[in-house]
Amino acid sequence: MTTAKTLEIKVQSSATAVGKMRNEIDVFAKFGKDVRYNLSTDEGQFHGGDSTAPPPLFYFCAGLTGCFMTQVRAFAKKMQIPIDGLKVDGLFQWRAHLSETDPYVGAPVGFDFEIAIDSPASAEDIARLVNAAKQGCFIEQTMRTVNAIGHRVTLRGEVLDL
Amino acid sequence: MTTAKTLEIKVQSSATAVGKMRNEIDVFAKFGKDVRYNLSTDEGQFHGGDSTAPPPLFYFCAGLTGCFMTQVRAFAKKMQIPIDGLKVDGLFQWRAHLSETDPYVGAPVGFDFEIAIDSPASAEDIARLVNAAKQGCFIEQTMRTVNAIGHRVTLRGEVLDL
Repeated sequence: MTTAKTLEIKVQSSATAVGKMRNEIDVFAKFGKDVRYNLSTDEGQFHGGDSTAPPPLFYFCAGLTGCFMTQVRAFAKKMQIPIDGLKVDGLFQWRAHLSETDPYVGAPVGFDFEIAIDSPASAEDIARLVNAAKQGCFIEQTMRTVNAIGHRVTLRGEVLDL
Repeated sequence: MTTAKTLEIKVQSSATAVGKMRNEIDVFAKFGKDVRYNLSTDEGQFHGGDSTAPPPLFYFCAGLTGCFMTQVRAFAKKMQIPIDGLKVDGLFQWRAHLSETDPYVGAPVGFDFEIAIDSPASAEDIARLVNAAKQGCFIEQTMRTVNAIGHRVTLRGEVLDL
């Protein structure tokens, strides 16, 4: 008999804008035990920052790459498909339309992985594994979905209507 | 007269799986000049890792938080709306259905920001600024869109059909 259960994943961030463009960001979760990292961001001079930390998009790209790779290895164990090596090159593209008067609107353009797997397994098993990892990766699944993002803004003690 | 132009954003990653669950990830882009960071990931013991680096989801949450905050300050300058302070608390949730036999499928549940802004500006101006930042944040815009993610897999020199 297959017994199924649900795993709830909750991550929190607490962030303060400092300096010109730097954001001091603490990220924390209860993953088995408490896990906490400072993952601050900054921008380069071209975007008005001081280059003291990685740009936000870099964290996004690392998270997406690492999430997929983690699922390949986690599911390889579960599916008993041996993996001796895994390398992934990612290319992530966006576009913005700039005007001199209005703020720009950003848009995703494309996200692509080149994946090199070293394994004695059959092509069918590796395809099955990669497809399972795509479905298991929380970030890829988020990107395949239209998500509402909540913004509750407080100004001088009052909650704003957006 | 308004002159408009398009800004193309391209970020690349190059990653190798090492150890149990660690991924050594270099992220690089030409943002004005070459920018490169090592943003490696790992998992805790509960997920078979050695806790040598932040989990992938932490990078995703930091990227999303930092992207939105950066746009608030960048657009505040452009829209001439003064901002004296900005704090953001984020809550990011996912769910997975586990079974004993199959790999799990992940799903996004909710993404919410509590935003505290310190500013002498009017509520209307702050609402206009936050709404512009939501549209300008590349990661939020990605999350509001259904994205195809390309996976090109090579095994023993052959490209696989997925």
